[in-house]
Amino acid sequence: MTRPMPENSLGVALIGTGFMGKCHAMAWRTVAATFGGAHPRLEILCDTPESRAHAYAGQFGFARATADWHAAIADDAVDVVSITTPNGLHRPMAEAALRAGKHVWLEKPMALTLADAEAMAQLAAQNPDRVTILGYNYLRSPAFQAAVGLIRSGAIGTPHAFRGVYDEDYSADPTLPWSWRMTHKEGGLGALGDLGCHLVSQMVALMGDVTQVTAMTQISIPMRPAPDGDKPVENEDSALALVRFASGAQGSFATSRVARGRKCRLQWEVHGSGGTITFDQENMNALWLHRAGEAGFTRHLTGPDQPDYAAFCPAPGHNFGFNEQKVIEARDLISAIAGGPSCGPDFAAGLKIERVIHAMATSNGRPVEL
Amino acid sequence: MTRPMPENSLGVALIGTGFMGKCHAMAWRTVAATFGGAHPRLEILCDTPESRAHAYAGQFGFARATADWHAAIADDAVDVVSITTPNGLHRPMAEAALRAGKHVWLEKPMALTLADAEAMAQLAAQNPDRVTILGYNYLRSPAFQAAVGLIRSGAIGTPHAFRGVYDEDYSADPTLPWSWRMTHKEGGLGALGDLGCHLVSQMVALMGDVTQVTAMTQISIPMRPAPDGDKPVENEDSALALVRFASGAQGSFATSRVARGRKCRLQWEVHGSGGTITFDQENMNALWLHRAGEAGFTRHLTGPDQPDYAAFCPAPGHNFGFNEQKVIEARDLISAIAGGPSCGPDFAAGLKIERVIHAMATSNGRPVEL
Amino acid sequence: MTRPMPENSLGVALIGTGFMGKCHAMAWRTVAATFGGAHPRLEILCDTPESRAHAYAGQFGFARATADWHAAIADDAVDVVSITTPNGLHRPMAEAALRAGKHVWLEKPMALTLADAEAMAQLAAQNPDRVTILGYNYLRSPAFQAAVGLIRSGAIGTPHAFRGVYDEDYSADPTLPWSWRMTHKEGGLGALGDLGCHLVSQMVALMGDVTQVTAMTQISIPMRPAPDGDKPVENEDSALALVRFASGAQGSFATSRVARGRKCRLQWEVHGSGGTITFDQENMNALWLHRAGEAGFTRHLTGPDQPDYAAFCPAPGHNFGFNEQKVIEARDLISAIAGGPSCGPDFAAGLKIERVIHAMATSNGRPVEL
Amino acid sequence: MTRPMPENSLGVALIGTGFMGKCHAMAWRTVAATFGGAHPRLEILCDTPESRAHAYAGQFGFARATADWHAAIADDAVDVVSITTPNGLHRPMAEAALRAGKHVWLEKPMALTLADAEAMAQLAAQNPDRVTILGYNYLRSPAFQAAVGLIRSGAIGTPHAFRGVYDEDYSADPTLPWSWRMTHKEGGLGALGDLGCHLVSQMVALMGDVTQVTAMTQISIPMRPAPDGDKPVENEDSALALVRFASGAQGSFATSRVARGRKCRLQWEVHGSGGTITFDQENMNALWLHRAGEAGFTRHLTGPDQPDYAAFCPAPGHNFGFNEQKVIEARDLISAIAGGPSCGPDFAAGLKIERVIHAMATSNGRPVEL
Repeated sequence: MTRPMPENSLGVALIGTGFMGKCHAMAWRTVAATFGGAHPRLEILCDTPESRAHAYAGQFGFARATADWHAAIADDAVDVVSITTPNGLHRPMAEAALRAGKHVWLEKPMALTLADAEAMAQLAAQNPDRVTILGYNYLRSPAFQAAVGLIRSGAIGTPHAFRGVYDEDYSADPTLPWSWRMTHKEGGLGALGDLGCHLVSQMVALMGDVTQVTAMTQISIPMRPAPDGDKPVENEDSALALVRFASGAQGSFATSRVARGRKCRLQWEVHGSGGTITFDQENMNALWLHRAGEAGFTRHLTGPDQPDYAAFCPAPGHNFGFNEQKVIEARDLISAIAGGPSCGPDFAAGLKIERVIHAMATSNGRPVEL
Repeated sequence: MTRPMPENSLGVALIGTGFMGKCHAMAWRTVAATFGGAHPRLEILCDTPESRAHAYAGQFGFARATADWHAAIADDAVDVVSITTPNGLHRPMAEAALRAGKHVWLEKPMALTLADAEAMAQLAAQNPDRVTILGYNYLRSPAFQAAVGLIRSGAIGTPHAFRGVYDEDYSADPTLPWSWRMTHKEGGLGALGDLGCHLVSQMVALMGDVTQVTAMTQISIPMRPAPDGDKPVENEDSALALVRFASGAQGSFATSRVARGRKCRLQWEVHGSGGTITFDQENMNALWLHRAGEAGFTRHLTGPDQPDYAAFCPAPGHNFGFNEQKVIEARDLISAIAGGPSCGPDFAAGLKIERVIHAMATSNGRPVEL
Repeated sequence: MTRPMPENSLGVALIGTGFMGKCHAMAWRTVAATFGGAHPRLEILCDTPESRAHAYAGQFGFARATADWHAAIADDAVDVVSITTPNGLHRPMAEAALRAGKHVWLEKPMALTLADAEAMAQLAAQNPDRVTILGYNYLRSPAFQAAVGLIRSGAIGTPHAFRGVYDEDYSADPTLPWSWRMTHKEGGLGALGDLGCHLVSQMVALMGDVTQVTAMTQISIPMRPAPDGDKPVENEDSALALVRFASGAQGSFATSRVARGRKCRLQWEVHGSGGTITFDQENMNALWLHRAGEAGFTRHLTGPDQPDYAAFCPAPGHNFGFNEQKVIEARDLISAIAGGPSCGPDFAAGLKIERVIHAMATSNGRPVEL
Repeated sequence: MTRPMPENSLGVALIGTGFMGKCHAMAWRTVAATFGGAHPRLEILCDTPESRAHAYAGQFGFARATADWHAAIADDAVDVVSITTPNGLHRPMAEAALRAGKHVWLEKPMALTLADAEAMAQLAAQNPDRVTILGYNYLRSPAFQAAVGLIRSGAIGTPHAFRGVYDEDYSADPTLPWSWRMTHKEGGLGALGDLGCHLVSQMVALMGDVTQVTAMTQISIPMRPAPDGDKPVENEDSALALVRFASGAQGSFATSRVARGRKCRLQWEVHGSGGTITFDQENMNALWLHRAGEAGFTRHLTGPDQPDYAAFCPAPGHNFGFNEQKVIEARDLISAIAGGPSCGPDFAAGLKIERVIHAMATSNGRPVEL
């Protein structure tokens, strides 16, 4: 028998062990097995309290655990930091990581405020040899990548219109208690910050830069129960917008966290001079394409003819999963750290996304130029 | 054997023998067989040239044919006039009919200009004993009626958001020749006048009155081939809008005549505090409903538990057709003439629809109050 | 004004005013308006009691009413008889009509027993100048006609497999009372006679003649409540079969009247060497086609590129309805009477369908040659 | 910082690095991170030639590599053996592993012949302290587990009918070269062995034991190109069957490897006295349920209310993936090794599946008792 020699690899610190923390952990564990290359070293898992960090370090296979995120970032064995904490911690952690010379993988949205995001992008620009990437995982599904490829290849001619929504219903229940997440100060934006930014990331990937938005927001459930009586919800439950693109195309945009029955309806369509393409993340393994002259829309099940799918499964139509998007994101990050092409959205591109959602949040029915 | 005695019935003149003309003819022929009541007398078919009128009078079973619409309207045997001619003729014909004391069944949109529509509504108001009805046939499908009923019954709680589109692709081909329909003067509005008004009619039925719109329009194919060289398209290929309702709800609105692959995508969803309801006219026999606490969206196939279906078919799921919508419209018109409840949209309600689409057409990104 | 002269036309007697009776009446009223040609004369409506016949004669626009079907058939003004009565009356009425020299439009299934169907087919063969047609209306939808055309044109290569079901749930409720329809003597076959024969009609149209079936039947609800206590259900609630075709292809076949939630699931797929085509009557305006080399299945909405649709509507995707199938059937019958091609299934073709369902009913798991 | 201590864990040998080999490797890497518990030790990766084993050991993170499967199985550090090799190697490898006292995770089908499967089941029975599990991964999806749970809980009453297909098109292209997989001796069964056994595994889980099958098979492409001229295909391209269950229920069954456009259409429905449930693996995150009294079928998107989903993702509707099924399978295996409930199908249950597919393969239209 032979023993494969470990290659030099990246040392990883992961901060946060919730929904996205686990998703990052899984991606770090499987990225090399999926795509080849050196296995990342899972150095430090950070969460509070330390007992939680300790337990998850064991589960996720990290070598060490800590409740001290400063220590985790500063650690010499760490090359890259995954940040999956509440939004209010994004800026201090990302800045500390960049200042410590670490690459940063940050969950969206970038920060609570646009000013924070701008500062972060500025710092990233000052550290051009450090890779930043934001966790816009829906950009990585084979179907979405295929859609972008189809549009770039001219399959639907010149795109002239976009229609997109991202709806969920996690806040639809009026008995859901009030939380700090519903405040401007601690939660930042509402549906726009949580869901809308994903839709912007896809919209821009499909259509190019946004030059103007005109938007309205709505708080459907203005008061929420709290232990000491009902308290007001400050950030938007939903938003609607009209969009102008640099290309001259136009679009409509909607997002809601109170859309009953919607679980991950990140759904859009692009109208082109020569065809139409549509997608719905709730059925993320089906891409629908119509080209001029065809009888209707064709359902294209995700398969090895789409980007990156074959590394997961050689058989078409077998269903790519949500978590696997993150594995592709990890691969892109590793590749960029190794000097490959920037895979985006990095902090500069992420700032553009932030500008769009903050413009929507403040438009109040007036056009805002970007 | 016995012989049923004919009842007193309405005398009908039908002007126009195209798409909608045939649809009206079929409705007049079958409405009594479907719903009971006196069979309308198919008195006069009018079109130009007279040979065409003559041929179609035979086919549709009208007693007489003429190319003179004034004569058709003036005829003593005629009680009600179906007007299915190009939009520019709507006002003179409808006004002539009202002035001749006839009831009017007019295809949408009401007129080329908002001023025309206002004049027509004013004349109708001056003739309150004459029934007017506009051909918003999509309001009549059992599924749509059921949707309205569900919302009114509180099945989805308080409606707070609307998302609607009406897309077709009949103008998507850039080699389609230029026509007078693409001019403001002779064609009036573009996609808004042809498709958007239908969507407004449903939006208002579902959500109540509109108080503000903010819209953008687009001409995707600015020049079209004509025998003497390319000529400009003047009216919009597509439009997008944000909508505020009197109820406080908000909505997004889109329509296009250049949406490749769309054939009759009159699709909308209503978000309520207690559920969501969605519909797509391309699959008009399926209504989708989710209510809080249910596992997902339920597909409700059109059946006798929905309004008016049983008169066509006692068996559920057997598929109601486009043309049958018009039969219900005819029944509603006859019922209103007989003194039943107004079935709308009459000219007053139609004028509201016109105001919405004309506001969208002229908004140019600014909010317009209604 | 001019007056179109009535052409010589067919005199019609219609027997029965239920689900299918009304459907025939509507078809007779609209066939000429839809397709041109002489309007049929609606001479006699027959049902019991005579008061019912009288009322429906008025509603449907028939000139006379009677409760005496012998008189209706014998009437000199009658050229063609629509028979929509319970199955046990099919044979005597059809035979009386043929013997009286009338053309016959008979609802399916042909008769209660195979012997009856054989006798009827024999009599029809002895009257070759009289047209017979069975009401297999699902054969007439534009989508189904298009499917047959696609297969014949080689769009999916050589068909090698068929999978078909026809499920409804009208008998699924165990509290539904016992009825004579559930007996062999008065009801004949169960799901096979009511639903299965439709599926056979489509299967044969798609795949060609059947040479062997192997089937099982099941009575899911063996006892039903009756006023004098529970009584046994004699005919099958569901049936399953394996099928061999003369072409060498194979197929599976299933039908049920106790399939909860199914309303008109007449659903099949044909596998060919070069593609696959699928259809579901519950969404009868969508035909799905995949051809080798394409990315997936394409949804083809019913439109004027499919047979007969344009006579109803020039715009694609606007939804053809169940009742309109019957109008096409009427047109085919009229055309055959006028010397056009046989439109089938006539009694000879219908007998083949009966042989298949009776073979399934009696197979009991053994292969039966046809 | 603290260092989690590794727990005692299972030593794994994996044989095979193809489609399923990689899938096993990923499952072994992530099972503990997903569900907790000790991380398996990835001891030995085995494939030929050794260079391939070596390369994949590095990629998958195995400590050692070998081309000698006997050595891999015999290794003292190995507790459990994943066998993902061609079917002809299943029996010798599984038997060697059992004889060496190892637990066995074997990909389906069990073996080339029924005699082989019987011998394997016998050996497993003689080693009751060794866990065996067959790779029927589709049994593990949350939607499928939920379906089984719904049926067991009586959500659809008493199941009385099953309809199932498993179709793919990987052999549909007639230019696909002949291979040993198409022979009885080296490939065993065709579509039944590759696809049909999965459908049987689900059918039995949903409906209980099979007592009788009546089946037909077909070779659609009898000759395939080989370097030295066309050679015959021996095993079936497709099969159809009627099924009787011990419960008294009946079913239809179909499988094909030449169904154009189908990629993973493992689709079934169960009809019960009180409802119907349907599923299609091509859209594996949607389960459709209708219960008596509801308006139609409800789409239940996979979410944390279904078994095992929450370990992968806390948010509903975010899409579980094909590969994640294998992670659940690994968890079940580890749990059974630790003394938890048998998770099946073990070799005894697998033998029952083999008996069904071999009965189908040899039925030739006659009923075969089981």
